[in-house]
Amino acid sequence: MDITAGQLLSQIEYPSDLRKLTREQLHQVCDELRQFIIDQVSVHGGHFAASLGVVELTVALHYVYNTPYDQLVWDVGHQAYGHKILTGRKSVFHTNRKYHGISGFPNRGESEYDTFGVGHSSTSISAALGMALASKYKGEHDRQHIAVIGDGSMTAGMAFEALNHAGVANANVLIILNDNCMSIDPNVGALKEYLTDISTSHTYNKLRDDVWNMLGKLPVGKKFTRDMASKFEASIKGLVSKSSNLFESLNLRYFGPIDGHNISKLTDTLQDLKDIPGPKLLHVVTTKGKGYSLAEKDQTKWHAPGLFDKITGEIFKKIPEGPQPPKYQDVFGLTMIELAEQNDKVMGITPAMPSGSSLKFMMEKMPDRAFDVGICEQHAVTLSAGLATQGMRVYCNIYSSFMQRAFDQVVHDVAIQNLPVVLCLDRAGLVGEDGATHHGAYDISYMRCIPNLIVFSPMNEEELRNMMYTAQLPEQKSPVVIRYPRGEGVMSDWRKPFAVMPIGKGRKIRDGRDVAILSFGHPGNFVTEACRELMNDGLEPAHYDIRFVKPLDKELLHEVFSRYDKVITVEDGAIRGGFGSAILEFMAEYNYKADVKMLGIPDRLVEHGKPAELHRECGYDAAGIAMAVRQMMSSQVTVSEG
Amino acid sequence: MDITAGQLLSQIEYPSDLRKLTREQLHQVCDELRQFIIDQVSVHGGHFAASLGVVELTVALHYVYNTPYDQLVWDVGHQAYGHKILTGRKSVFHTNRKYHGISGFPNRGESEYDTFGVGHSSTSISAALGMALASKYKGEHDRQHIAVIGDGSMTAGMAFEALNHAGVANANVLIILNDNCMSIDPNVGALKEYLTDISTSHTYNKLRDDVWNMLGKLPVGKKFTRDMASKFEASIKGLVSKSSNLFESLNLRYFGPIDGHNISKLTDTLQDLKDIPGPKLLHVVTTKGKGYSLAEKDQTKWHAPGLFDKITGEIFKKIPEGPQPPKYQDVFGLTMIELAEQNDKVMGITPAMPSGSSLKFMMEKMPDRAFDVGICEQHAVTLSAGLATQGMRVYCNIYSSFMQRAFDQVVHDVAIQNLPVVLCLDRAGLVGEDGATHHGAYDISYMRCIPNLIVFSPMNEEELRNMMYTAQLPEQKSPVVIRYPRGEGVMSDWRKPFAVMPIGKGRKIRDGRDVAILSFGHPGNFVTEACRELMNDGLEPAHYDIRFVKPLDKELLHEVFSRYDKVITVEDGAIRGGFGSAILEFMAEYNYKADVKMLGIPDRLVEHGKPAELHRECGYDAAGIAMAVRQMMSSQVTVSEG
Repeated sequence: MDITAGQLLSQIEYPSDLRKLTREQLHQVCDELRQFIIDQVSVHGGHFAASLGVVELTVALHYVYNTPYDQLVWDVGHQAYGHKILTGRKSVFHTNRKYHGISGFPNRGESEYDTFGVGHSSTSISAALGMALASKYKGEHDRQHIAVIGDGSMTAGMAFEALNHAGVANANVLIILNDNCMSIDPNVGALKEYLTDISTSHTYNKLRDDVWNMLGKLPVGKKFTRDMASKFEASIKGLVSKSSNLFESLNLRYFGPIDGHNISKLTDTLQDLKDIPGPKLLHVVTTKGKGYSLAEKDQTKWHAPGLFDKITGEIFKKIPEGPQPPKYQDVFGLTMIELAEQNDKVMGITPAMPSGSSLKFMMEKMPDRAFDVGICEQHAVTLSAGLATQGMRVYCNIYSSFMQRAFDQVVHDVAIQNLPVVLCLDRAGLVGEDGATHHGAYDISYMRCIPNLIVFSPMNEEELRNMMYTAQLPEQKSPVVIRYPRGEGVMSDWRKPFAVMPIGKGRKIRDGRDVAILSFGHPGNFVTEACRELMNDGLEPAHYDIRFVKPLDKELLHEVFSRYDKVITVEDGAIRGGFGSAILEFMAEYNYKADVKMLGIPDRLVEHGKPAELHRECGYDAAGIAMAVRQMMSSQVTVSEG
Repeated sequence: MDITAGQLLSQIEYPSDLRKLTREQLHQVCDELRQFIIDQVSVHGGHFAASLGVVELTVALHYVYNTPYDQLVWDVGHQAYGHKILTGRKSVFHTNRKYHGISGFPNRGESEYDTFGVGHSSTSISAALGMALASKYKGEHDRQHIAVIGDGSMTAGMAFEALNHAGVANANVLIILNDNCMSIDPNVGALKEYLTDISTSHTYNKLRDDVWNMLGKLPVGKKFTRDMASKFEASIKGLVSKSSNLFESLNLRYFGPIDGHNISKLTDTLQDLKDIPGPKLLHVVTTKGKGYSLAEKDQTKWHAPGLFDKITGEIFKKIPEGPQPPKYQDVFGLTMIELAEQNDKVMGITPAMPSGSSLKFMMEKMPDRAFDVGICEQHAVTLSAGLATQGMRVYCNIYSSFMQRAFDQVVHDVAIQNLPVVLCLDRAGLVGEDGATHHGAYDISYMRCIPNLIVFSPMNEEELRNMMYTAQLPEQKSPVVIRYPRGEGVMSDWRKPFAVMPIGKGRKIRDGRDVAILSFGHPGNFVTEACRELMNDGLEPAHYDIRFVKPLDKELLHEVFSRYDKVITVEDGAIRGGFGSAILEFMAEYNYKADVKMLGIPDRLVEHGKPAELHRECGYDAAGIAMAVRQMMSSQVTVSEG
């Protein structure tokens, strides 16, 4: 289907085209941009509500600032679709998030307007401050640096670290706080309460208005000098004392809150702020999903709804034929309730992913035992450790790539103290359309090196469920990592009585001749498929589901290496330091010699696409595994990475 | 030398003994405790100034609170010597930080009074909040949970994440902000400025005094009820509006600032606070090094001064005979200045370790090009990435174990974007007396799995220097990791003209027969020593300094594995996923078969002691390497880990 842009938008290829329009025309540009996003996302999928919420802000920023010379950093990047459309990518926007298409996030390789690659939250202030300090050092005093960050992202520690530096750095950085009270789920925490307070407080806003009125009285078009700016600052301080605001406590000039959907107000305000040097923060209040009423009403559902009928709002779901395997995340979420009902020590923690992790089921049912702590992975892990010291059995659920943020806390607070926290890593392996920033590629390597941890990956729903059960048994006293992928499992009939999963024990799935395939976690299913295919050709590979990369099942591995001298390892993680590497270490330790071919994520970035496309690209889908077996059995030595 | 405690202190084994004393006697206890710390540290070494600064606070806390039922978490733990002495460890305190002695940090395995193991900064609020939430859930409403955190530690993001949660958690947690304006070096950032402002502002303190006077008028000895507390809170809000203070913005009741050396005021205040439920923060102003005037005057020098004459203040240094090899950190610090003088794009970043990293040399000479950003590893790395987008060549220096805090930023902001940031990991490998929390054990494993990174380790000062030089050359466009150990190198004459270090190229140090030893970084010197010893016995091992664990020198490794079928790998890092593991991956890729013995840090926690003691324990000092060679040459198959 061809999607055409509106009359004005069709004339805009780059921000320079936008800047040729009059201020009055910007309303129409916003309407057309919003419609274009609705048209595109309803048909091609992607993130939705976030970009609708910043249509006016996006247009205002590119209208007022001289991008790309002025540097704009979008935090996370879910909201940057409008930015992409206005900066040269309108005609390829239909390839968004598709294999070999444009990225769903700003990406330096894609456009000079994408000043910093994003995906994980809360990096924008640090990045923009770095750019601003470089400009300061180079003497580019007219250059502007803008970070657009949501109130959800502002709860992450690294945003605070950057604010603490920005307040004393005397560099030209504008932080735009895009306050919509949301992460993917509703935002939580004291900061959110505070922002709501100041956005709704009449007295506070009165003071702010005074400041704005004063600003309005300054001669139009005249640039601020540093001297004028300093006088201006003194006046502000007369009105509102320095310590009267959280951000001003940190020495950032605070402006706002203003309505983020009023394009005139936004352009006026940004125009004024452009002339005020130094670090400053503009508080903009927006509505996530703005302009699409269903999305405004259920912002979590419409964060990334999938394909939908833009007129009726019907979200298209695959029509299930017969009972379907559930998503791994739902197995986690539903099993949590069962475990908590059996064991009053069980608790659940999520950093801002109640829906994504399905911990929301337990949060709704047992609000005193399951918490969302905000985008705070570090705090989530150490809080879990603190709870564990008191005998609680905490399941802390964090996406694999976000767990990178809490790596030190896993080492320092969980593993060194050997506290039996259960770290559940959802979205492990290649996640698909979110691409390089979101692949859970490294967790096997970065977890396997840590003493005391048990590192497990289930091949199916039942294994996940049984390991979750085993992790809370009183005799289980060590920290446990459970990694599982995004998406569906393989068992429609998964809800069976709990059984103990013996720690450090794998299983043999099938005996064979000549070659043994060892798999870790879900890709074991690809091996099963490959074995079927190979058996049709008269080959008989053995298959072992190793289950635990730590501790390894030495007994099983002794069996493997006494019987086979050709071995293939399969994992949904980086080969470097990963599962295959653990097998090689076992071999070295016991002096086994065998040909080993390691399949998994190669030592390069893997971009976005459907998981199946990416598994194929990396050579560990069923076809890739079968090919590796054939190559190995024809005794050709091959190089494992291109 | 026998160190005896003073009259009162000698009667105190546990806090229960302390609590038998009158309030009037606490002054004397403080004097005696301070003197005991001075006596011990001057003779046995350790951290010094931090513990002197909290003598009164320590005594007051254990006097007022019912430890260990009430739970006390010390942030970092440098300041917990007084706590250790008052909680059963006075008689073993002379073993502090020594091999098989007590830990220099609170440690759960050591005492029930050590509620949470610490070492890295800024974990205390999360941990204490976890404990408080557990108590709340269990209905232990009388139980108190106290986190003592410095103003330096408060700058780290995870402390903010915890505050954001604490403000809405409605749990019984008291955060004591120990404000001494210091990290190890002077604290930096907007928060520090703010704290200084509120500590010195007359108007502000006047308001605070009003609050305190009101508190004083409450009936002595009468417990606050929840109702009274709520009235009390309302009164405070009348005096100081909710948004008037950074901490109150986050919904934490703020008390203080008070003098942290006034034991009477401290005990009174804590007694009052004990009866106020919910999250609250007490701002205590202290002087690091209090009571030892030299330490008060130069707090950085006296943070951990080594042994000294407690009367004259003379710090004992080893007397150098002839020219000495410098510390690796000084090679880094001095080379930075040379590089910056040659290349105006060179910049330096440290998160709160100007002295420890020796970046201070450059910070003094070129303050616009070298920054301390506070205890903010995450921000430090992403700021460096932001600077790198503008063509700057940033050397971001972070201790290996602290780099764990910025792992995600290394993946997401540096490596995925392939920005040529130079990550300098000081204190890599076993660091010695600081023990398990501080060993830089995992960086080879957690860095090696990341695409685009170059991972290097120098065997001596010259290699460090030349790699630093190479990393800033225009043709070098990838991120570089340089890991080097704590302490001295091996070359007294290190300051030679720069030479290019070819990326991904190792070197053969000596040819040999039968067995090849491959080393990574500084432990290559242990190999040299082992080879000398083995040659005396008529053995001839080959030795290769591999230099780059990523990318590997394939040409050199093809030579190794075509010539040798017995290979030993040596590294100062975790064996799991580390350097030896990379060699095994190479072998698998090219189908080499050889006996490989991997020496390095085993898969268990290594505690504290002198580095040489720990290297011996782990079996990769010269003697351990020589033994491994002998065992391998006698063809015994041995198990690499006990």
